[in-house]
Amino acid sequence: MSPASRYTYLGPEGTFTEAALRTLPEAATRELVPMVSVPAALDAVRNGEAAAALVPIENSVEGGVTATLDELASGRPLMIYREVLLPIAFALLVRPGTSIESVKTVTGHPVAQPQVRQWMAKHLPDALWESAASNADGARLVQEGRYDAAFAGEFAAATYGLDPLVTDIHDADNAATRFVLVGRPARPAAATGADKTSVVFWLRDDHPGALLEVLQEFASRGVNMMRIESRPTGEGIGRYCFSVDCEGHLQQRRVGDVLMGLKRACEKVRYLGSYPRADGGRATERPGTTDTEFVEAADWLTRCLDGRG
Amino acid sequence: MSPASRYTYLGPEGTFTEAALRTLPEAATRELVPMVSVPAALDAVRNGEAAAALVPIENSVEGGVTATLDELASGRPLMIYREVLLPIAFALLVRPGTSIESVKTVTGHPVAQPQVRQWMAKHLPDALWESAASNADGARLVQEGRYDAAFAGEFAAATYGLDPLVTDIHDADNAATRFVLVGRPARPAAATGADKTSVVFWLRDDHPGALLEVLQEFASRGVNMMRIESRPTGEGIGRYCFSVDCEGHLQQRRVGDVLMGLKRACEKVRYLGSYPRADGGRATERPGTTDTEFVEAADWLTRCLDGRG
Amino acid sequence: MSPASRYTYLGPEGTFTEAALRTLPEAATRELVPMVSVPAALDAVRNGEAAAALVPIENSVEGGVTATLDELASGRPLMIYREVLLPIAFALLVRPGTSIESVKTVTGHPVAQPQVRQWMAKHLPDALWESAASNADGARLVQEGRYDAAFAGEFAAATYGLDPLVTDIHDADNAATRFVLVGRPARPAAATGADKTSVVFWLRDDHPGALLEVLQEFASRGVNMMRIESRPTGEGIGRYCFSVDCEGHLQQRRVGDVLMGLKRACEKVRYLGSYPRADGGRATERPGTTDTEFVEAADWLTRCLDGRG
Amino acid sequence: MSPASRYTYLGPEGTFTEAALRTLPEAATRELVPMVSVPAALDAVRNGEAAAALVPIENSVEGGVTATLDELASGRPLMIYREVLLPIAFALLVRPGTSIESVKTVTGHPVAQPQVRQWMAKHLPDALWESAASNADGARLVQEGRYDAAFAGEFAAATYGLDPLVTDIHDADNAATRFVLVGRPARPAAATGADKTSVVFWLRDDHPGALLEVLQEFASRGVNMMRIESRPTGEGIGRYCFSVDCEGHLQQRRVGDVLMGLKRACEKVRYLGSYPRADGGRATERPGTTDTEFVEAADWLTRCLDGRG
Repeated sequence: MSPASRYTYLGPEGTFTEAALRTLPEAATRELVPMVSVPAALDAVRNGEAAAALVPIENSVEGGVTATLDELASGRPLMIYREVLLPIAFALLVRPGTSIESVKTVTGHPVAQPQVRQWMAKHLPDALWESAASNADGARLVQEGRYDAAFAGEFAAATYGLDPLVTDIHDADNAATRFVLVGRPARPAAATGADKTSVVFWLRDDHPGALLEVLQEFASRGVNMMRIESRPTGEGIGRYCFSVDCEGHLQQRRVGDVLMGLKRACEKVRYLGSYPRADGGRATERPGTTDTEFVEAADWLTRCLDGRG
Repeated sequence: MSPASRYTYLGPEGTFTEAALRTLPEAATRELVPMVSVPAALDAVRNGEAAAALVPIENSVEGGVTATLDELASGRPLMIYREVLLPIAFALLVRPGTSIESVKTVTGHPVAQPQVRQWMAKHLPDALWESAASNADGARLVQEGRYDAAFAGEFAAATYGLDPLVTDIHDADNAATRFVLVGRPARPAAATGADKTSVVFWLRDDHPGALLEVLQEFASRGVNMMRIESRPTGEGIGRYCFSVDCEGHLQQRRVGDVLMGLKRACEKVRYLGSYPRADGGRATERPGTTDTEFVEAADWLTRCLDGRG
Repeated sequence: MSPASRYTYLGPEGTFTEAALRTLPEAATRELVPMVSVPAALDAVRNGEAAAALVPIENSVEGGVTATLDELASGRPLMIYREVLLPIAFALLVRPGTSIESVKTVTGHPVAQPQVRQWMAKHLPDALWESAASNADGARLVQEGRYDAAFAGEFAAATYGLDPLVTDIHDADNAATRFVLVGRPARPAAATGADKTSVVFWLRDDHPGALLEVLQEFASRGVNMMRIESRPTGEGIGRYCFSVDCEGHLQQRRVGDVLMGLKRACEKVRYLGSYPRADGGRATERPGTTDTEFVEAADWLTRCLDGRG
Repeated sequence: MSPASRYTYLGPEGTFTEAALRTLPEAATRELVPMVSVPAALDAVRNGEAAAALVPIENSVEGGVTATLDELASGRPLMIYREVLLPIAFALLVRPGTSIESVKTVTGHPVAQPQVRQWMAKHLPDALWESAASNADGARLVQEGRYDAAFAGEFAAATYGLDPLVTDIHDADNAATRFVLVGRPARPAAATGADKTSVVFWLRDDHPGALLEVLQEFASRGVNMMRIESRPTGEGIGRYCFSVDCEGHLQQRRVGDVLMGLKRACEKVRYLGSYPRADGGRATERPGTTDTEFVEAADWLTRCLDGRG
């Protein structure tokens, strides 16, 4: 297939990221290529070897989240076009015939461990945990006989000839992982009415209240922040950039006004895209923040400048 | 003369307002008409009977200040085109031959009293004060023999055949009265680099923090407020509008942006004009608030919308 | 009577201030003494010649409001113990036998004029207005035959042998004047649950956002401001102090916390008292601002300092 | 040795965490026990099996940072008593005799990769990267001959019989990892004048501006935030807690006041300790925020309550 029909993702095969990618209808007609790391998956897009990449961005059970944030914030610009939410639910994969009583060693991705810790304390109190390079890799190690069981997605069982001994394991209710489909920059898709906008910004300095002033840009236009994460910039302890998702689409006036405010107030801003919300939620509009009111205010300003205010 | 060359002012003749008006070079070629009240002076402008009116707006020694604020906030719109600062300095006017020892009764405008109170306590501790309708009217009452002395502007002495027994009387150093030249709405004069913008706004509701949110519109663009006064709207105790002067000219992007913000956030906004500062002071520009940065941010937004961010 | 049973008020007799004073039950057993000005009324209290003074503080129809604000902000400290609300309603007082058609000249206090302006335009379009020193003084001038009618309180008619030709005149619905009963500083009366606290503060400097920071002290504790007025400090144009009423009583933790915040943030603060609200309204308590929550937070801090957080 | 003299740390031996721990003078007299994970290191402290644990908390080159944040935010309370800063500098470890030209495969901890990516692109453009479970584990795999080279601390070379072929490798200048020494809750050490306070809080709800209001608690007392990170609470996408370091010590009034403010404003707050800053930096004190001014404000409030304001 041509690069235009190729999607990369954080591999290996059999991981939650692949499962998330397959929830996209278009995935059926694309060549899906697992990559060894988030940077590798995204560089393939940057280099034109793939049209898009699916990578985890929030609360991952397989790592890569900070790598995703850092890759989107640096290097050649990329944009987010879609998000996918996948409920967190592990299966305990074993070789056929293994009983839970005989499970003495367990493996899985390091970031999976905190997600199943309470379940293990209750059901496998004496089992020894050792980390694997990925959830899928853990399954492979069970197949090879090096561990008795692996936490992985139920969908990985078949690939490695294993059985899902227990399914739907997760310590926290409602836990989910969020993935994003990333491509090269282009005009964002039209607003659907239930959209989300992502942006990363670097504060101009770190005087007390610098972050506060920037967050004020969102609050003053009634634009709700849905996620905020700080990331070290690599320029030393205490130097951060902030990755933010907010409600709304860049084509909405209040969102555009927030972004212009960030552009003026910050050392640097990178727009990461506007795309449909996976949860379908719609923002409530605070009085004074509708497109109509923005247009009316601009018209009024023009009249004032003309002496017809 | 035609109405186009007529200026009204808060009379009567011989008041500080007239003195302030005569500091304007153009006053020499205008017909100057004293009016009985601020509303009367402004209504003459509204009705086309005069081109402009000079009225006190701040720290007046002759009253009329709240009347000015209320008139500018209601009725047919007017605009401020010029401001005049006049240092406060009273003269003690007496009939020729009167010595300070023989001054037993003193008059003047009620709002003059607090401005000369300490001086009186020291130099005329036993004299009785009674209010007159205006400082000039007080001078007339002295001329008629009803009082021994009047506080008024030194310039009023000649008009009423009086002598300035003591001059330059003022309890507070640096005290001044501010007057504004008001006309019918038109395109504001071009920015001079040292300008001031006046606006009045009505809060949408009175939840805790409503005023705070509106003031944030100024602060977030680094636009310094130079004056803020609350005025009852006449709709009952606890209902206010706010009259604000801020640094800068409507033609500056940050000032225009503040006004659009007020327009969206407030129940109502009335733009009262942008005009040169009498003190010639220039605003310091906070990083991120120059016209250049506003234009760059708008350009960047356009590029983001086009997928070229 | 002794000074302890004497109340002064802004005179002369027959004004709205006297009417407001007489609404207080205790007034029946006090000697009520009219004074020529707000400073005079308050100085009698400062000097121990009277126990308290009633003066207008908001939306006055007889002036004295700015004098009250300025007097409370400067000179020897005073405190507010009570407030009185009086609906604004003028009567048109005439000599017996006068018909409305024969009224050609009208008088009253200058600040009364804007309150009856629309009524006059409709019912006395051709009558000439001239200002009097007070509403009561206007009535006296009608009695003497110098004017045909005076706007004053209906209660002033009998004093001057006049008839109330029209009553309940007021341009704005719901308009009222607010008066305060002022005494020497003492422990404020216990909280009633529907209280108001008054304070005046001077900003430390005038950097952009200085006022904003101070107002934040109120907003961050959910304490609603009911009135804010700026007053020139007399140290030159552009130098202000702010007079604020807020909901609640100093004995409430959130109000005390706001005042401590003002004390730290401002150049100067003057506490003007906590007293029952004339409208009986109770403040809504925002989560996190009750006395219980303040005490719990202080207890928690103590535990943290002890290593038992 | 007894648990009281035992310190755990995020192992295995030969990692940067061990190197950081050994910078503490007291480490020389303690039993240092490597643990397989941050939770394991901290649980040993919780269970009384160790006196303290050293774990990475910021910008780690070995992972564990989010685990540290999450462990400090949940489970049985712990407190931070010390911080250690370690500059990031990798060595390329090889078997003796290996030249850089012969390095075809490289390993290391996954989070090390982004830290050396640019260096690899320049000096080892064709080498293949594969992740190891830890930097030390990577060294072991080189020792076993499975890879040609490993990125790890130079100090790990001897342990695994390897040579540091290149040292001081780091893409970003000034990059460092921050570690914290964590113990069971106790009274924090006395303020040194150059201290830092850590806290984690959960917002009461997610209305627009909720985070802003909480950050205002810091800004309004002039307390500078040095780090802010959001962490999912595990209750679903979009639910966060915030981990914050700020300047100052809990024994300083302004810091205590901020924490009481957080306690009232937030759903939940956990105090994580006050401890000396590794960088020795001292906070600048904004006017109005010194201990003296806090005490004076409290005294003034007491006087106001007593009628002696």
